Amino acid sequence: MSVIETFVQTRRQTVSITAPLSLEDYCVQSREEVSPPKWHLGHTTWFFEQLLLSRNADYKFFSTDFHRVFNSYYKSLGQHWLQAERGQLSRPLLREVIMFRDHVDSAILKFFSRGASEEEKSILVLGCQHEQQHQELLYMDIKNILFNQYTPSAYLYPSHSGISTRVKPRFIAFAPHLVDIGHDGQGFAYDNEGPRHRFYIRPFRLRNTLVTNGEYLHFMESGGYDHSEFWFSDAWDWLRSEKISQPMYWIQRGGQWFEYDLRGLQPLDLEEPVRHVSFYEAAAFARFSGKRLPTEFEWEFADKQRHPDLKQMHYVLWQWTSSPYVAYPGHKWKSGPLGEYNSKFMVNQLVLRGSSLWTPQGHSRSTYRNFFSPDKRWAFTGIRLAEDLDEN
Amino acid sequence: MSVIETFVQTRRQTVSITAPLSLEDYCVQSREEVSPPKWHLGHTTWFFEQLLLSRNADYKFFSTDFHRVFNSYYKSLGQHWLQAERGQLSRPLLREVIMFRDHVDSAILKFFSRGASEEEKSILVLGCQHEQQHQELLYMDIKNILFNQYTPSAYLYPSHSGISTRVKPRFIAFAPHLVDIGHDGQGFAYDNEGPRHRFYIRPFRLRNTLVTNGEYLHFMESGGYDHSEFWFSDAWDWLRSEKISQPMYWIQRGGQWFEYDLRGLQPLDLEEPVRHVSFYEAAAFARFSGKRLPTEFEWEFADKQRHPDLKQMHYVLWQWTSSPYVAYPGHKWKSGPLGEYNSKFMVNQLVLRGSSLWTPQGHSRSTYRNFFSPDKRWAFTGIRLAEDLDEN
Amino acid sequence: MSVIETFVQTRRQTVSITAPLSLEDYCVQSREEVSPPKWHLGHTTWFFEQLLLSRNADYKFFSTDFHRVFNSYYKSLGQHWLQAERGQLSRPLLREVIMFRDHVDSAILKFFSRGASEEEKSILVLGCQHEQQHQELLYMDIKNILFNQYTPSAYLYPSHSGISTRVKPRFIAFAPHLVDIGHDGQGFAYDNEGPRHRFYIRPFRLRNTLVTNGEYLHFMESGGYDHSEFWFSDAWDWLRSEKISQPMYWIQRGGQWFEYDLRGLQPLDLEEPVRHVSFYEAAAFARFSGKRLPTEFEWEFADKQRHPDLKQMHYVLWQWTSSPYVAYPGHKWKSGPLGEYNSKFMVNQLVLRGSSLWTPQGHSRSTYRNFFSPDKRWAFTGIRLAEDLDEN
Amino acid sequence: MSVIETFVQTRRQTVSITAPLSLEDYCVQSREEVSPPKWHLGHTTWFFEQLLLSRNADYKFFSTDFHRVFNSYYKSLGQHWLQAERGQLSRPLLREVIMFRDHVDSAILKFFSRGASEEEKSILVLGCQHEQQHQELLYMDIKNILFNQYTPSAYLYPSHSGISTRVKPRFIAFAPHLVDIGHDGQGFAYDNEGPRHRFYIRPFRLRNTLVTNGEYLHFMESGGYDHSEFWFSDAWDWLRSEKISQPMYWIQRGGQWFEYDLRGLQPLDLEEPVRHVSFYEAAAFARFSGKRLPTEFEWEFADKQRHPDLKQMHYVLWQWTSSPYVAYPGHKWKSGPLGEYNSKFMVNQLVLRGSSLWTPQGHSRSTYRNFFSPDKRWAFTGIRLAEDLDEN
Repeated sequence: MSVIETFVQTRRQTVSITAPLSLEDYCVQSREEVSPPKWHLGHTTWFFEQLLLSRNADYKFFSTDFHRVFNSYYKSLGQHWLQAERGQLSRPLLREVIMFRDHVDSAILKFFSRGASEEEKSILVLGCQHEQQHQELLYMDIKNILFNQYTPSAYLYPSHSGISTRVKPRFIAFAPHLVDIGHDGQGFAYDNEGPRHRFYIRPFRLRNTLVTNGEYLHFMESGGYDHSEFWFSDAWDWLRSEKISQPMYWIQRGGQWFEYDLRGLQPLDLEEPVRHVSFYEAAAFARFSGKRLPTEFEWEFADKQRHPDLKQMHYVLWQWTSSPYVAYPGHKWKSGPLGEYNSKFMVNQLVLRGSSLWTPQGHSRSTYRNFFSPDKRWAFTGIRLAEDLDEN
Repeated sequence: MSVIETFVQTRRQTVSITAPLSLEDYCVQSREEVSPPKWHLGHTTWFFEQLLLSRNADYKFFSTDFHRVFNSYYKSLGQHWLQAERGQLSRPLLREVIMFRDHVDSAILKFFSRGASEEEKSILVLGCQHEQQHQELLYMDIKNILFNQYTPSAYLYPSHSGISTRVKPRFIAFAPHLVDIGHDGQGFAYDNEGPRHRFYIRPFRLRNTLVTNGEYLHFMESGGYDHSEFWFSDAWDWLRSEKISQPMYWIQRGGQWFEYDLRGLQPLDLEEPVRHVSFYEAAAFARFSGKRLPTEFEWEFADKQRHPDLKQMHYVLWQWTSSPYVAYPGHKWKSGPLGEYNSKFMVNQLVLRGSSLWTPQGHSRSTYRNFFSPDKRWAFTGIRLAEDLDEN
Repeated sequence: MSVIETFVQTRRQTVSITAPLSLEDYCVQSREEVSPPKWHLGHTTWFFEQLLLSRNADYKFFSTDFHRVFNSYYKSLGQHWLQAERGQLSRPLLREVIMFRDHVDSAILKFFSRGASEEEKSILVLGCQHEQQHQELLYMDIKNILFNQYTPSAYLYPSHSGISTRVKPRFIAFAPHLVDIGHDGQGFAYDNEGPRHRFYIRPFRLRNTLVTNGEYLHFMESGGYDHSEFWFSDAWDWLRSEKISQPMYWIQRGGQWFEYDLRGLQPLDLEEPVRHVSFYEAAAFARFSGKRLPTEFEWEFADKQRHPDLKQMHYVLWQWTSSPYVAYPGHKWKSGPLGEYNSKFMVNQLVLRGSSLWTPQGHSRSTYRNFFSPDKRWAFTGIRLAEDLDEN
Repeated sequence: MSVIETFVQTRRQTVSITAPLSLEDYCVQSREEVSPPKWHLGHTTWFFEQLLLSRNADYKFFSTDFHRVFNSYYKSLGQHWLQAERGQLSRPLLREVIMFRDHVDSAILKFFSRGASEEEKSILVLGCQHEQQHQELLYMDIKNILFNQYTPSAYLYPSHSGISTRVKPRFIAFAPHLVDIGHDGQGFAYDNEGPRHRFYIRPFRLRNTLVTNGEYLHFMESGGYDHSEFWFSDAWDWLRSEKISQPMYWIQRGGQWFEYDLRGLQPLDLEEPVRHVSFYEAAAFARFSGKRLPTEFEWEFADKQRHPDLKQMHYVLWQWTSSPYVAYPGHKWKSGPLGEYNSKFMVNQLVLRGSSLWTPQGHSRSTYRNFFSPDKRWAFTGIRLAEDLDEN
């Protein structure tokens, strides 16, 4: 598929994700970290306008007022609207945002019809990748918005795809290796996936499958949320102040557990992988189980091995690792907006690996580094366990 | 007009206020004290359902889920959705709320077509009065919502009605009087307007007109917001923490002052009465001017005199008084939801008298007691000055 | 007693109140509204220095650094240290504060030995009255500090003086009267006790005694803190956010109720008047009892009647009234620091009348207006009930 | 020195650090993360009582009330007093804490005079190491307390020891190495210094000296605090909300810069290493300089090389590294209080290496891992720069 074909398809796909929503759903913000769907439609468009079209002196901006409202946090691109206050924006109206999208789409097609430099093409690719990230964010945010109504509401979602495996859990051993970590330069990758560098992996074992709802329920029923010894100090404070005692979308009604997914409330399926847990919860569960979370390097190494018994690595749930999100050795912090894409977040966050059922096809790879604060759990997160093996 | 005719007309009027809005505007909440217009449409409907229709065992509720979502704060009527989180409610959709309104309107008409008791009629009247209050709240909230967009937006508002008077400001003297304060029982009044009771009014003088933008600008330019001696202690703290230095909808651009009204940004008209000031600002302005605010009793007494030179008492702006909002002597706090209408707010608020350009016709009278916290200023508030006269 | 004798005695009395404390107790701050005892010693001294000694060009300040640290909130007297951060001041040391007191005492004696104007004498009187207010504040703050230790600690307090009356509770009727409210100018009074003005008192009945611990316990055991219908809206929010379910110094141990007083924990005496309740609690108790709180005018009128059956009006507990703290008609807000003494607090507070066991002798009178925010309860507060009588 | 001699000397040293303080200084808390010196005296004593003496059934606790008040955060050892409220504890009095210290010291000597197991000896060593950590915390906290007075106050500190070097700054190259990271088991080490493990170090260069005040001032004067491009996203938010624009103890007076140290305010010495900067500031300075911070592994490797030109590695200032504080591979999280010593903090913090002028002798080693949140700067922190070298 050509770059432009990818562009056209990506832009269409974003709109189609929001299509099942009612107009009201486009405007609201259910938590500080959630953005209204309308805002995502505008922001992904703004990205192309700012990074690509603005290079052309002839380009006519759809509206200079949009520069501020659809800038997420790029200080190098001027002021931006406060994230926590996106939910008060009834304006621009949805139809204006759609017109904005059309305006930019046409301009991009015209821009590239005249031929484009390699750098311009690479920015177009980045814009598409950026928009794909927002496609998953849209699912995350829509889920949170529809759940936080007076009654959890359904999104028109195709019938359930079944991500549980009936495979018996076991740990797969990996021998020590000196491996190359990071992207090899073939195809698109974000700058945080490199530089590729050598890393020594100690012997370890990795669970073939993700932790299930049934296993997690056992942790809960064993008092997991009441015993401080399983929790980091910050995690325990978070638990108490936020009054957390279960994964994000679990609800107990009449003694029975239900889980909200985009189809609505469902009886909890004990075989499905547990999801919407924070790093704090994942780490506590691991400690309760006498195991640990894998490092991001172990995960990447194991994934590249393509061990046939290793299940649910991609397109099921993002998997918390024990690795803080920091730069790889030799990482250069780019100047300008591209430096604000990944580098400025390299503190206070943890790496997740893999991808989720809601990740766009083609957006998952062994080297991909997703990241969130340790208390966040509205992403499609899950738990995979690891443990040490003796080195000899 | 019969009670039922009033009902029908009131219900239509509410919808017509929201008609110029785009669907997006119905859903958002720009400040904690502002409610989304959609919520007002539902809440005023819920009021009739709860206080009137629910008395009929045969009545079929439109949706029991709505009980919680459209209850504002009536603890005696079950749980209620948190006020600060009304802006996250994309559901119920506007069309569902409209259906809810139709459902309740039909039920009310049917209910009263069979004849109704005096008590039921009086509750219907209360419901209409309640909805009229929300009509003004709708204007207040719409103004705040449309202002707090990425750019202040216009509401389709009829051409300006001109509330400035070109009358020269002067103070009108009132001799001492032993007067009856409170409502005389003719026609509708809220329970907080009684019991009627005798009160001794000392001699005083009252300004014929409201304070103008020009006068207020002079206060600002004289350093009014920088000198603590004009301000109550709590007011000064509020000023500093909220970074307040001008009325709510004033904006300075290129050295010129503009004021947002529902038509959009307008050059500041120095002859118009200043509006959207808090009690704290009104009191500071009065002290700066060497005057004071009137008591609510002085205001009521003066209004009942119908002095021909006394201008702008009704249907211009609500006027802050120096009177804390407390019960009149002999006031009975009703039990149940009616007791929650006014009585439970009788602490920490100040009384405003008069009415505003946005107050529904027929909803203004000499004895009407509006009330807000001293820091609130999204209501249509203004300033009228008073001063003491020697008693002899 | 001459003014100077009063001065000397007042200054000694303040130090003697703090004498039983350990040096550590002088420095800590247990709540934002509580000040370290050391700070009171300095602040009352600063008051004389600023308002009196600084008029003398020859006066040598003990330390200009103290101007900021011992200014409470007088904006007209320069910057002041943040109230919430008084507890971090280990410096000046206690011995330096004592030296500061000695320095100022000597200077005052010298100042007045040369003869003084009437105005200077009246400021000296005000300074003494001010210091007497801080004597009671010292008891309030010491009580709060010693209670909020790892275990409630005792202050060396003389044997209990017995403020319970064994008198049977009853309501005393008062006929309607047109009365003069406010101070008559004989002897010292604060500016908020005037101007004296005529006020019409409707017929009412007033309880002869204060509400007892036993009565209040009955309110608690009847679910008083669990039923919103007794509470103002703001009160209910306060209750829930602060998790309040009993008076301030009550503790339940092993099913038994104890009350902390300055002697330490004591078994709750059901005959004693309930104390350390907020206005919110007093008003809720009154509503639960089918009564109301008196207005400050009713209280003053009844007190001036000197009805022999009316008990516990003075030197027992401050009594919450239903009257918001506002200026009397004709009140002039003084400019400079004297205007900051009382006037700038005339919003958001309620009036208490009477005095407490910890009020200095001579500091109680019928017209005295104490005031606190409706949620405060570390003062020595109590409840007296009233009710309406038919006017005929 | 025998274990017991170390114990006796450590206990004496702690008291001698606090000796220059006035009694008032022992009780106050200037920030949430600062503890009153009195509390440190009690807490370090409690540690020996809980972890050692309580094993002996015959031991008589000095006061069971102290268990709660001197527990810092050990959930496995019962309840603990809230850290933010340590400053309200006037009780226990200092003399009671000293008696507590004497009581425990005697009991320990008696305990060990009878002979002790290896495990008991190792806990005694841990207790001494723990107390040495609190000796440095005492300096940190005393500095913060004395600075945050109405005027920065002096602590009786010996004449300045001169930590500036007049060495010209340069970068020292280190070739790539596969090295062993972590403690080798000879002598005392904390559990977070192991397990020792192999790590590949890429070629890099490390600055011979710490960044100076002069260099940091240049960063400030070049607008370092005003340009977002040097800062992590979280750092920028911190900067703005805390209004940070200089290192913690810098003050500008009359156009001149001063720095508070324990002797009082000093003119800023441009040759001295900059101190009391947060990780956020250290990282921003590094990015401004076109360099980076070293990893903790680079630092440890370089330190073990004992390169003669490498200055100021120990006993000058703790040096921020770019390494998040996480467990080394194979780390076992101990159960009980020992697991709460280090392991439960292994998230959201950054590693510092080296030691400071205020670190007790013998408490510095190549493998020592200190850690703080990225916004903290009341520790004796400094900046050492690093940069990449090409791998070939």
